[in-house]
Amino acid sequence: MLAQRYRVWPGRQARHNGHVPAPSPQLDPAIADRLKRDAAGLFPAVAQQYDTGEVLMVGWMDDEALRRTLTTGRATYWSRSRREYWVKGDTSGNLQLVRSVSLDCDGDTVLVQVDQVGPACHTGSRSCFDGRRLPVTVIDPPRARDARRADAAEPARGAQP
Amino acid sequence: MLAQRYRVWPGRQARHNGHVPAPSPQLDPAIADRLKRDAAGLFPAVAQQYDTGEVLMVGWMDDEALRRTLTTGRATYWSRSRREYWVKGDTSGNLQLVRSVSLDCDGDTVLVQVDQVGPACHTGSRSCFDGRRLPVTVIDPPRARDARRADAAEPARGAQP
Repeated sequence: MLAQRYRVWPGRQARHNGHVPAPSPQLDPAIADRLKRDAAGLFPAVAQQYDTGEVLMVGWMDDEALRRTLTTGRATYWSRSRREYWVKGDTSGNLQLVRSVSLDCDGDTVLVQVDQVGPACHTGSRSCFDGRRLPVTVIDPPRARDARRADAAEPARGAQP
Repeated sequence: MLAQRYRVWPGRQARHNGHVPAPSPQLDPAIADRLKRDAAGLFPAVAQQYDTGEVLMVGWMDDEALRRTLTTGRATYWSRSRREYWVKGDTSGNLQLVRSVSLDCDGDTVLVQVDQVGPACHTGSRSCFDGRRLPVTVIDPPRARDARRADAAEPARGAQP
């Protein structure tokens, strides 16, 4: 049955110790090896408007969603509620055209810089964070300035130029 | 023992069905009610430099980390590897002075706008995403322009002014 579906030939099965790779394209193993996923195989993806810097939304990806995002030019996520892939904008028209994708230092988050067409949020607001501020205590400016001065006086610890 | 530590008085235990609330301050229930957490009680927090828009890092919070972030003026996360709270900058000096915190439309992510002192990344780079781009396919400009035009011609769906 497997042999019929995947055209396994003699010898290949032995080399792969019984595991037959699916014929579909897969995420570059060099990237997959760097990823750290949660128990469900997912990691958060932050979508940011590439030119204004606005954080638009946070979605979730697995390896396949990342592969599609990297190769199709359209941001693609995994919907945890619907349990399916969704290409952002496929139903709303509010596409995210991918400009760059970066993996963070720990390999557990991606930053997807996009050109967002229309609102990113399903509520119609540009960003999913618009108008949803929580009350915060802000440290008063003199204390903040002191913290900055102390930092400036401290030798750089391997900071990039 | 509990009674000694938390000064439980007669009647209170009965009213709370045996559960004695800890005496420590808790996250505003109006905020806690809006949060959606993962199986471990956590949600991602995106830290963004408040003026440049740079996405600095993504950390994890639980209710208590969010409460501390909202009330102390210093971004505070839950370390999944060390299983403890960490106030960003407490050991490195690279503080994050909180400017605003927003909860997203689904209540499962927060955006923390900060004034980052020094590098945000433990590797010494300003952001945890610096210099970590993955190879992407970018849709060619004419197709992107077409997508924008189609969007502009479409009536707004409840977009905020």
